[in-house]
Amino acid sequence: MALTNRRWLLARRPQGELSLDDFAFEERPFEEPELAAGEVIVRTGLFACTPTVRNMLNDAGHSHRGSIPLGNPIQGITGGLILRSRHPRYPEGKRLVAVLGWEDYRVIAPDLSPLPVFLLPDDMTIEEALGVAGLNAQTGYCGMLHVGRPRPGETVVVSAASGSTGSIAAQVARIGGCRVIGIAGGKAKCDWLLNEARLDAAIDYKNEDVANRLAELCPEGIDVFYDNVGGSILQAAMDNIAVHGRVVVCGQLSAYDSGAPAPGPDDMMKVVYSRVRIEGFVIGDFDAATTRRAQADLLRWHREGALAHRLDIRHGFEALAASYLDLFRGGNEGTLVVRTADID
Amino acid sequence: MALTNRRWLLARRPQGELSLDDFAFEERPFEEPELAAGEVIVRTGLFACTPTVRNMLNDAGHSHRGSIPLGNPIQGITGGLILRSRHPRYPEGKRLVAVLGWEDYRVIAPDLSPLPVFLLPDDMTIEEALGVAGLNAQTGYCGMLHVGRPRPGETVVVSAASGSTGSIAAQVARIGGCRVIGIAGGKAKCDWLLNEARLDAAIDYKNEDVANRLAELCPEGIDVFYDNVGGSILQAAMDNIAVHGRVVVCGQLSAYDSGAPAPGPDDMMKVVYSRVRIEGFVIGDFDAATTRRAQADLLRWHREGALAHRLDIRHGFEALAASYLDLFRGGNEGTLVVRTADID
Repeated sequence: MALTNRRWLLARRPQGELSLDDFAFEERPFEEPELAAGEVIVRTGLFACTPTVRNMLNDAGHSHRGSIPLGNPIQGITGGLILRSRHPRYPEGKRLVAVLGWEDYRVIAPDLSPLPVFLLPDDMTIEEALGVAGLNAQTGYCGMLHVGRPRPGETVVVSAASGSTGSIAAQVARIGGCRVIGIAGGKAKCDWLLNEARLDAAIDYKNEDVANRLAELCPEGIDVFYDNVGGSILQAAMDNIAVHGRVVVCGQLSAYDSGAPAPGPDDMMKVVYSRVRIEGFVIGDFDAATTRRAQADLLRWHREGALAHRLDIRHGFEALAASYLDLFRGGNEGTLVVRTADID
Repeated sequence: MALTNRRWLLARRPQGELSLDDFAFEERPFEEPELAAGEVIVRTGLFACTPTVRNMLNDAGHSHRGSIPLGNPIQGITGGLILRSRHPRYPEGKRLVAVLGWEDYRVIAPDLSPLPVFLLPDDMTIEEALGVAGLNAQTGYCGMLHVGRPRPGETVVVSAASGSTGSIAAQVARIGGCRVIGIAGGKAKCDWLLNEARLDAAIDYKNEDVANRLAELCPEGIDVFYDNVGGSILQAAMDNIAVHGRVVVCGQLSAYDSGAPAPGPDDMMKVVYSRVRIEGFVIGDFDAATTRRAQADLLRWHREGALAHRLDIRHGFEALAASYLDLFRGGNEGTLVVRTADID
C-alpha cells in the first residue's frame, strides 16, 4: 500500500521575523523501500517546537549549528515509532526520539546518525521523552546544576522561566534549596510560576520594569542568572549581579527572530570587580551518565509531584508550521509539541 | 627635628582623560606623633603606578573599588621603611609594601589595615616586591593559571602583553608549554615580547589589524584570552575564540580614561555555541598560600632567567603625578615605579 508522506520544507531563508511564507507544505507518496542492514523506517508522530530550530533556518554564515538547505525538510526533535526494521537493537514497534525532518515517514540508520537516536524504555511515554525528560529539560537541569552550580540559600533568577528549558532550570534550583525568581511574559505565565512551579517570585516583563523589580527582589544581588533571552533582560540581571555571580548563557531568544545578534553586558569592569563568571554551554557537551541522571531525576520528581511541567500539545501535521510560529509570539503555554499521529 | 611631608592630593574628579590639573601638590611639616600600641611610622620610598588607581579617582557611583575623597592623597601600592614602631612584628628598619597615600610619611596600624600589609623578607628587594613578585605580577600569574587554566599546547593570547600584569600572564603560559601571542602598542614593545619575553608572536595594535592578525596566527582559535584592555581588542579575540575558549577578564584599560564603560562581546550566541567561559577576578580572592606560591615561582623563574621583567623606574616625588599620566599614554616600558627615597 502506498503511504502519503506530508512534509514541511524550508521555502526561503527568513529575513527577520519568521513567517508562514518561509515554509512550504508538500505531499507525496511514500513507497516503502528495501531496507539495507542497519536501517529502519520511522513513522513520526510528535514534533517538539524548540527555539534552536530557528537558528538552523539561517544560512551557514549566520548559524553555528548547521543550516537546513533550502527545499529540505525543517529539522527538529521528533518522536516516532519504528515501522519496519533491519536493525537488531531497533526492532519494529519500539519508539524513539531523534532529530528528524518534519515529515511523516523517514528511513534512518541509527548507528550512522550524526546526533544520538534515543530508544525509549517501555515505561516512558514519548510525551515524557520530549517534555519533562526531553533535551530542553535536560538542558535546564544540566545548565543549572553543572554550569550555574547554585548553593542552597542562594538567589537564582531565570529568564523565559515558563518555557521548556527555563521552567526546569528554575525548579531544579528551587528543589536544590535556592530562592528562585522567574521572569516571563504575561500574568498567566507568572501565575503558573508562582502556583504550579512554586517559585518565590515572578516578574512579568511585559508589564513590569525588570531591572527595578530585580533590584527590589534581590537586595543582596543575583547569585546565579540562567539566561535564555539575552538583550535588555541580561543587562538588567548584570546590573543586579552579586559578587561571585554566575551567568549561565543558554540561549538568546531575544535575537533569534530579529536577524541582529544579542550583545553582551554593557560594562565589562563589573565582570572584573564582581568576579562574575559568564559561561555558555550546549547539552551535547554532557556525557551520557550525566544526562541519564538528569532524565531519571526529572521523571522521578515529576511523578512524585515535586516538579511541575506543562506540555502545550497541538494537533495535526498541517498545523506544524503555524504552531512553531507561536513560540516567537509567546503564544505557547509550556513545552510546545505537535502531535501528528497516534503512536504512543 | 621636624620633617617635611610632601603629598599628592586629588584636586578634582577627572573628566575623561586624566590631566595634571586633577592632582594637587602640597608640602607641610611632619611632626612625629606619639605612637599608640600597634602603630608604626612609615617612610615611603617607591610608588607603583598601576592602572587600577585610575578607577579610584572616580566618585563612588562610578567605581567599584572605593573612591578617594577629594582633597585626600592619591592611594596606591607603595614600598616603605619602618622608621618608628610600637608593633612587635613590624620593627624599625624592616621594609613593607602596602596600599598607602602618595606622601612621604604615614602613621599606620598594620593589624587594622583594611588591605594586607606585606612585610618583606630580608632577601627580597622592594623593587622585586613591587615588580616581578608584586601584586600585578601575582595577578598575571594567578589569573592565567587559576582562571584561564591553559593546558600545554594550547594557544593563548594576552592583551597589554608588555605591561606589568600582561607580561607575567603571557610568560607564565609560555613556561607552562603554551603557544603565546602578545598584543602591545608599538614596535619596541613587540620586539621586547619576541626577544626578551620569548613569546611565539606579537601583534602591534597601533600598526596592525588585530582581528586579521589573530585570524592568521590562530587558525584553530584562541583557547585562552587574557584581557587587560577590553573594547575592540576583546571583540577581535571573541571573533577568533576556540570552542571551549576561556576569556580571563583582568581589566578594561580601554575604558579607564574615557569615562565610558567598555561593553561586552557583540554576539552572546557565540558564547553559547562555542561554550565560552568569560570570567573576571581580583587578586584579593586568592588565599595566602596561592599568592605565596605565585611570588616564590616568579622570583625563582626571574632569578634563573626564565622570566623576563622590566621595571621602568622614574625618580623624584615631584614627578609622581606626571609619571602616572604616562601609563595612559603608553609611555612606560614595563612596570612603572617612581622612586622617591633611597630606602632599599
